[in-house]
Amino acid sequence: MIVVMKKGATKEQIEHMIRRVEELGLKAHPIYGTERTVIAAIGEKRDEHRASLESGAGVAEVVPILAPYKVASREVKPEPTVVRAGSLSVGNCHLGMIAGPCSVESAEQTLQTARAVKAAGATALRGGAFKPRTSPYSFQGLKEEGLKILAAAREETGLAVVTEVISEGDVPLVAGYADVLQIGARNMQNYRLLEAVGEAGKPVLLKRGASATLDELLLAAEYILNAGNPQVMLCERGIRTFETHTRFTLALSAVPYLHDRTHLPVVVDPSHGTGHTSLVAPMAAAAVAAGADGLIVEVHPDPETALSDGYQSLTFEEFEGLMELVRRVAEAVGKQIE
Amino acid sequence: MIVVMKKGATKEQIEHMIRRVEELGLKAHPIYGTERTVIAAIGEKRDEHRASLESGAGVAEVVPILAPYKVASREVKPEPTVVRAGSLSVGNCHLGMIAGPCSVESAEQTLQTARAVKAAGATALRGGAFKPRTSPYSFQGLKEEGLKILAAAREETGLAVVTEVISEGDVPLVAGYADVLQIGARNMQNYRLLEAVGEAGKPVLLKRGASATLDELLLAAEYILNAGNPQVMLCERGIRTFETHTRFTLALSAVPYLHDRTHLPVVVDPSHGTGHTSLVAPMAAAAVAAGADGLIVEVHPDPETALSDGYQSLTFEEFEGLMELVRRVAEAVGKQIE
Amino acid sequence: MIVVMKKGATKEQIEHMIRRVEELGLKAHPIYGTERTVIAAIGEKRDEHRASLESGAGVAEVVPILAPYKVASREVKPEPTVVRAGSLSVGNCHLGMIAGPCSVESAEQTLQTARAVKAAGATALRGGAFKPRTSPYSFQGLKEEGLKILAAAREETGLAVVTEVISEGDVPLVAGYADVLQIGARNMQNYRLLEAVGEAGKPVLLKRGASATLDELLLAAEYILNAGNPQVMLCERGIRTFETHTRFTLALSAVPYLHDRTHLPVVVDPSHGTGHTSLVAPMAAAAVAAGADGLIVEVHPDPETALSDGYQSLTFEEFEGLMELVRRVAEAVGKQIE
Amino acid sequence: MIVVMKKGATKEQIEHMIRRVEELGLKAHPIYGTERTVIAAIGEKRDEHRASLESGAGVAEVVPILAPYKVASREVKPEPTVVRAGSLSVGNCHLGMIAGPCSVESAEQTLQTARAVKAAGATALRGGAFKPRTSPYSFQGLKEEGLKILAAAREETGLAVVTEVISEGDVPLVAGYADVLQIGARNMQNYRLLEAVGEAGKPVLLKRGASATLDELLLAAEYILNAGNPQVMLCERGIRTFETHTRFTLALSAVPYLHDRTHLPVVVDPSHGTGHTSLVAPMAAAAVAAGADGLIVEVHPDPETALSDGYQSLTFEEFEGLMELVRRVAEAVGKQIE
Repeated sequence: MIVVMKKGATKEQIEHMIRRVEELGLKAHPIYGTERTVIAAIGEKRDEHRASLESGAGVAEVVPILAPYKVASREVKPEPTVVRAGSLSVGNCHLGMIAGPCSVESAEQTLQTARAVKAAGATALRGGAFKPRTSPYSFQGLKEEGLKILAAAREETGLAVVTEVISEGDVPLVAGYADVLQIGARNMQNYRLLEAVGEAGKPVLLKRGASATLDELLLAAEYILNAGNPQVMLCERGIRTFETHTRFTLALSAVPYLHDRTHLPVVVDPSHGTGHTSLVAPMAAAAVAAGADGLIVEVHPDPETALSDGYQSLTFEEFEGLMELVRRVAEAVGKQIE
Repeated sequence: MIVVMKKGATKEQIEHMIRRVEELGLKAHPIYGTERTVIAAIGEKRDEHRASLESGAGVAEVVPILAPYKVASREVKPEPTVVRAGSLSVGNCHLGMIAGPCSVESAEQTLQTARAVKAAGATALRGGAFKPRTSPYSFQGLKEEGLKILAAAREETGLAVVTEVISEGDVPLVAGYADVLQIGARNMQNYRLLEAVGEAGKPVLLKRGASATLDELLLAAEYILNAGNPQVMLCERGIRTFETHTRFTLALSAVPYLHDRTHLPVVVDPSHGTGHTSLVAPMAAAAVAAGADGLIVEVHPDPETALSDGYQSLTFEEFEGLMELVRRVAEAVGKQIE
Repeated sequence: MIVVMKKGATKEQIEHMIRRVEELGLKAHPIYGTERTVIAAIGEKRDEHRASLESGAGVAEVVPILAPYKVASREVKPEPTVVRAGSLSVGNCHLGMIAGPCSVESAEQTLQTARAVKAAGATALRGGAFKPRTSPYSFQGLKEEGLKILAAAREETGLAVVTEVISEGDVPLVAGYADVLQIGARNMQNYRLLEAVGEAGKPVLLKRGASATLDELLLAAEYILNAGNPQVMLCERGIRTFETHTRFTLALSAVPYLHDRTHLPVVVDPSHGTGHTSLVAPMAAAAVAAGADGLIVEVHPDPETALSDGYQSLTFEEFEGLMELVRRVAEAVGKQIE
Repeated sequence: MIVVMKKGATKEQIEHMIRRVEELGLKAHPIYGTERTVIAAIGEKRDEHRASLESGAGVAEVVPILAPYKVASREVKPEPTVVRAGSLSVGNCHLGMIAGPCSVESAEQTLQTARAVKAAGATALRGGAFKPRTSPYSFQGLKEEGLKILAAAREETGLAVVTEVISEGDVPLVAGYADVLQIGARNMQNYRLLEAVGEAGKPVLLKRGASATLDELLLAAEYILNAGNPQVMLCERGIRTFETHTRFTLALSAVPYLHDRTHLPVVVDPSHGTGHTSLVAPMAAAAVAAGADGLIVEVHPDPETALSDGYQSLTFEEFEGLMELVRRVAEAVGKQIE
């Protein structure tokens, strides 16, 4: 990292910082400029000491040079990771299509949806059994009963099951039924939960927090990778901005940016990312054009009566339309839905 | 609009607000709920009186019902507007491809770029002669000399010229050379300038301010339309968010959202919208997949020596690659580049 | 809530929505305007059905009228809540001063700091034993050993102990040592953890998530209150915005806004809220002037060698200066530090 | 600045960048680290060449070291600037209190307000004659008639007049009546207007754009200073964030941050910064506690009938209350209202 001294920093302050850098096991390389002095701190370590150097007397700022994540970095593993879970393949040229209801409400609703999305070409089924809800007075999910319904839907349709886990204590239970464990945006920095899914031996779909930077997302993935689980998919699902016309702002440039920095595949959620039925299909197509490795889309037999997220869920017919559009765009950019 | 009274609002306060609504020439329709009273204010007017009602005693909030823009609204004109300027057509199934250098630096650089982007399939030439720069110490553009260079490039290539105007006083001069007047993001709410281009009789490319809501963008367009100029293109070029990995956050959901609300065509700027060469082509493709009616892209013979925006300008070869990708995606979504 | 129909909504669509509102157990009150129809939905329930109505055909939007939180609302309990935990009183005219190191690093460092902040006038000791860290490679805290050190510091100084809990499984352990359980910003929507501290019988300091709205903060508090724990302090600690000169943007208007809406006391964290030593004291003074009921400030014997957050920690001397300034401002606005 | 090469950058790429740095007239200082190479570029110039270096092959990023503004910098002029205009003094220990209506609506309304704010202790009168309005259908101000009314109010009360100018063409007219020229947030980057007020010979109150960084604000001030006008006040008036409970987010940490970096005084606008009457006084007090050198507050004889901004304007009585509170806090932090 680079320690930038203030304009008027004294010789003593500069020498003190050189010693501090060396005490941290790094090599200090001072550069005396016309206006101010900077000290390059060279060594194998990541910039974990940045904060402590920043409080030194006479220091203007400390500029990091290396990315803070390691195992997720494309510099470490240049070839793209393909995550596989039953019927689902995500990464490289494989475009995964995950679809289903926001919440599992009943066996009938879930099975009906599973059949419809499978017929339209989806390669995995999503559905929430444990629901993190903003209000304690909202529907909280069917819990284990919901997991059983999802497993029954997999039995019949062959679709891999993607479902959220919201508590470290529930990981063994959910992992017993699911093919992919989903970490929701609200839990992206719930580190105990990240460690627990890191040890569960199942692929993970990690959603970006609504105000998380991409470095923070990669460091959250690093918690899972570091616990021994290499099967991680990142998911852009919209960030919180001043824009109120959409529920969140779907930051699609995250897709090519992440592809530059990491070998992990990137999935996009155009349902939460927009919050309006009419915007889901165009943004799904845009995500694929931007290079996304998968989509996760909310579909419901009757959005008007859905217990959650009805305003952003597609009908079966709308989902068929989305699939047709996505297939054409996928072909244009060299991706395959299998 | 709906005037929502506070829970404990008195009978006098409610009656006072009913009178206030009626004094504004609207019909007041009180609804006495179990917890609180709301007053629906009915009339033909837009919600221009909202602010004054909001300060009434006992009022909790005033909720607008109608969109604040009129002439730009799709409710007023359901069919899409196609903007035409020489070689450029933007709107409906016509995808306009505007490309060229950030700044006009010399006749040679501009002509060379015009030839290259024309050969690759661009339908208009961009280039800045008057440059709004964050720092007073940066290059401010060649001014009228730059306009002459652009006109010469049109002469040779037949490409329509899109160039920015940054001052109401310069509008006649710039309109004398340009085919399309561009209003930059920093000037989206420079109302005198909007009025001036509204009277100039040339099509306008109106860029969204970096923190403007879509309603504010449509109201800025309304200033131009209201001055008698119906030839307005809106342009999404990235909004300012907490995200620092990209220069701005390109909010592509603005494209389908605006198509729902307005008949005006929507252009996307993936160069400013990302700020990194490597992200321009994927985001250009994504914009077209989302339904954009045009793109505006920075291209330079030698980005490394560009006087502005080199880090986001494409080489001629990179632009050719972008055009190939965009053409395939355009075909997939039923758009034509002419 | 108010269901706003689109301009061209048909009679059938309007009648369908009236029936839908009535099926939800609410009274439908249609208002036929000159341009469009709105349906007021009246009943005792909160707006939990908003989402499902929003997906109805012909519906433009659904506007909520009631705040979504109940128990936290000032409409329910007009007098301010005072939270008390040993030496700490927060709320009404009591200004709580919580100070201490970011992380408990050793008995010596903690005790030394506890003595210094007590001498300067602090009324509680903060210190992290379980640390949620962005990177898995950063110091994660001394865990139970850290809790023991905090308890020993309370023993000697009499200061109440405020410390973070980051996992539902750790709640009994942490509650066995702490006087106040702190929920960090990253865990504001970790609902299982909120329920767990709701049942732990200890006062809670609930930090606002970096991108949480104030309604979401109040709904998170509602999870704790709803679990039977009325002793909740809210904490503004900075939100994530485009501004990069400070680590977060300390949104002090949250203080008077929350005082309008809720009876719960509001604490401000100027250390995380700014991320720079030199900004801590002015923002602490500003928070008190805005009406804050407490402050939580990071203090360290030697910020340069701190294992976390050194760049925003005050020295003992700087903290004394802060206390002098805060005392004068507190007096000016009628608050007492006890 | 520091040019950071990518991990795998070749020897040729590194040598090419060293030559590029030297071609720019800077001294190149390469540092070969264990993982990558960085090149420190040393010289007297500001970082204006950063953009062009960033597009070099093999370059990961270019990190600026010097602040981009010069004349505004505290490194150039350490002692604080005091801006004086008739009855108004702003800076150092002088707290300027600017108050008055959002818009000048009539002689009666303006004079009445001027008398009331003077009696309560204001040291200058604000009032808009040229109004920048989001919608073309809103009240646009009384223009020159408004300026005459303001001048008459100064005549009677002795209060200096602060009023906005929204067009470079209007600068001579407005400067003929006003004591201080205000640049609104929407025009912070209207560079022709900044240059025009830079040449007008009157003190300027420069408002921060709603999404401007503090560096951009200082560079906008630099346009005015660079045109020969040293009398510039900066004004924090709220930034645009995801927060919707307030109209903008008043970023008070800008006050101590700017005091660290610039000698120019900093004024705060708690009216626009919050958008709600009930939040104005607490945030005014907070601003003064944070070290603000002045306040600008909207006051109206009858906010309910105001032609603009009624929801954030104080009554005369509310302004008296604000003044009492502010006086006590000002005393606590060593500022005087004169």
